[in-house]
Amino acid sequence: NHAAEGNSSNKIFASYSVYKGKAALSASPRLPTFAKLESGGVKVDRKGTIMLTFWPAIGERKYDWEKKQLFALSATEVGSLINLGPQDSCEFFHDPAMLSSNAGQVRKSLSIRPHTDGSGYFFSLSVVNNILKTNERMVVPVSSAEFAVMRTAFSFALPRIMGWDQYNNQQVGGITNSNSSKVLPHLIDSEWER
Amino acid sequence: NHAAEGNSSNKIFASYSVYKGKAALSASPRLPTFAKLESGGVKVDRKGTIMLTFWPAIGERKYDWEKKQLFALSATEVGSLINLGPQDSCEFFHDPAMLSSNAGQVRKSLSIRPHTDGSGYFFSLSVVNNILKTNERMVVPVSSAEFAVMRTAFSFALPRIMGWDQYNNQQVGGITNSNSSKVLPHLIDSEWER
Amino acid sequence: NHAAEGNSSNKIFASYSVYKGKAALSASPRLPTFAKLESGGVKVDRKGTIMLTFWPAIGERKYDWEKKQLFALSATEVGSLINLGPQDSCEFFHDPAMLSSNAGQVRKSLSIRPHTDGSGYFFSLSVVNNILKTNERMVVPVSSAEFAVMRTAFSFALPRIMGWDQYNNQQVGGITNSNSSKVLPHLIDSEWER
Amino acid sequence: NHAAEGNSSNKIFASYSVYKGKAALSASPRLPTFAKLESGGVKVDRKGTIMLTFWPAIGERKYDWEKKQLFALSATEVGSLINLGPQDSCEFFHDPAMLSSNAGQVRKSLSIRPHTDGSGYFFSLSVVNNILKTNERMVVPVSSAEFAVMRTAFSFALPRIMGWDQYNNQQVGGITNSNSSKVLPHLIDSEWER
Repeated sequence: NHAAEGNSSNKIFASYSVYKGKAALSASPRLPTFAKLESGGVKVDRKGTIMLTFWPAIGERKYDWEKKQLFALSATEVGSLINLGPQDSCEFFHDPAMLSSNAGQVRKSLSIRPHTDGSGYFFSLSVVNNILKTNERMVVPVSSAEFAVMRTAFSFALPRIMGWDQYNNQQVGGITNSNSSKVLPHLIDSEWER
Repeated sequence: NHAAEGNSSNKIFASYSVYKGKAALSASPRLPTFAKLESGGVKVDRKGTIMLTFWPAIGERKYDWEKKQLFALSATEVGSLINLGPQDSCEFFHDPAMLSSNAGQVRKSLSIRPHTDGSGYFFSLSVVNNILKTNERMVVPVSSAEFAVMRTAFSFALPRIMGWDQYNNQQVGGITNSNSSKVLPHLIDSEWER
Repeated sequence: NHAAEGNSSNKIFASYSVYKGKAALSASPRLPTFAKLESGGVKVDRKGTIMLTFWPAIGERKYDWEKKQLFALSATEVGSLINLGPQDSCEFFHDPAMLSSNAGQVRKSLSIRPHTDGSGYFFSLSVVNNILKTNERMVVPVSSAEFAVMRTAFSFALPRIMGWDQYNNQQVGGITNSNSSKVLPHLIDSEWER
Repeated sequence: NHAAEGNSSNKIFASYSVYKGKAALSASPRLPTFAKLESGGVKVDRKGTIMLTFWPAIGERKYDWEKKQLFALSATEVGSLINLGPQDSCEFFHDPAMLSSNAGQVRKSLSIRPHTDGSGYFFSLSVVNNILKTNERMVVPVSSAEFAVMRTAFSFALPRIMGWDQYNNQQVGGITNSNSSKVLPHLIDSEWER
């Protein structure tokens, strides 16, 4: 289940990061990948996520990136997060080895719980690894303002990790008009078709 | 009323899908088509929609795509959906044969009703076909998190199915400046004109 | 104060329109125009608006476009509209001849008032023209769903009529990197400058 | 700490400005800068901000731009602002000379406090400069409608000042498909990697 680390040209580093006493947390989108169909169309191949990275403090304002733990939020988990009211909480469970022979050996859980005074949320990541016999837990308090950044940025990113920014009218005011009903009759198919 | 299935090159497949016990539901935008005017302008020819597709379960985690039913949400219906409060409901009625000789023979209705505990909505599609003498109904429970994805993604898609992403300032910091008031005086017309 | 009707090539027609018993209402963005500065920069020359057009019914489902009246919402008026709660109202006053010798001769006012049952708003346009001795008034009831479309589409359009879509990072993952701090040092100016 | 004023070609002027009795306030985004990595990737070098500019009135409808004071809102401060409820307030403190030998000599603070009747906010900028022995304060009342413009425009700008508009699927329906999972295997890296 280890993905090959390929060519990293074109890779973007623009995480939103918060550094707190015990650990740091950063978030950034991972775009979907697309596959061309024989029909000429294009479909989402691997879905995008918003990747959360936790890494622990090892001194005053020093953090150990080598000890980072990842948690990839799916579109629906992002929906859950951006929908949280001030007193709401949510929790997600992932098994990175799901569907492999190591299924159940590593359990990750992310919980997001409100501060008692409504001033933000605790983001807690727990990773239990039965193979390495490790049990790690990192907690990052996120203020209301930081959470508002996440909500706005994640709402911006959500259609993009779903691939919906592909549904984009080409600019027809200029030279080309490739969405013209004359040119692309297939776009007319609709609910009438059944 | 069957649209020709034309060339499907350039077609995008990036639906948001939820699979539940009795049926599955997916949503994706259908962009509008545009027509060039003799004046040189461009107008929306056929309006865009957000297409909902329901298809039934035929076993554990097996679904029959051949039995799918479509429901194309108009801009205003999308507005109704994204405006739903936790206890609100809405219902839409479509006649796919409207304005044809078969008007009234097929009735589709989509109702969206809240779970009693406020944890999401039931999406129910009913299709009564008097020609085929069929009466089908599929219900998909949609969680709050899934609905939040729909609300965010539909809000992203709404201006695009309306064609409003055509109202887009060309980047003028670079080489061209085609919106300059010198170049395109017609853009100055305003409410003063009457 | 009549703007010349220039070349209408590149003009986009993608209004959102609602047709009601007494009148119809449509809305579409009017983009700003830009002027190049001698310094090489670009500034907004004429601000964009969201143009509302009212035109009266003259029979069942027949409307007289020749009798249309325009009302151009400024950015701040759009802010007022998208901020309306279910029981809020607002009213705007325009003088199309403001700053000319005809100032005060034509008065337009747009009021938006909630339905008593909270199911939407009345959009009322009044135009008093002391030169033509006319006094016109058109009222269009707008449902909650239609208003939700306006709120979402106007929120999409607002940064664009302000020209803020010009503040757009060029894609740097590809060939060019024109925002690199090496290339464009002027972008470093900040609050430190005073 | 003075940034060089470089080449200003490509500079965009599209501020949102409000002019009030004692002072004026304008806002506009400052995009981040990017640096290319040796690996071929791209990272945010200097973070973007939303720049607020205050400048005082010196007569009826006359303002002195030379006396302007700047305050650059970080992403998290923007999050705090767009998250403000009608009765909420916030305050930010900046030291423009932070980390230099002049640290602590200039203190800027921006407070945003609600009108008592909930009809908007007071934006107050205070600048205490111990080197110049000056102490300036400018207050601009911002109406609810103007604040709604800021909230919408700042929400639009926030992902852009964070650099998140770089996370943008290239249009794959056309000629190129550079996000294809075959072409860019590195995009497959995920939480599984640790």
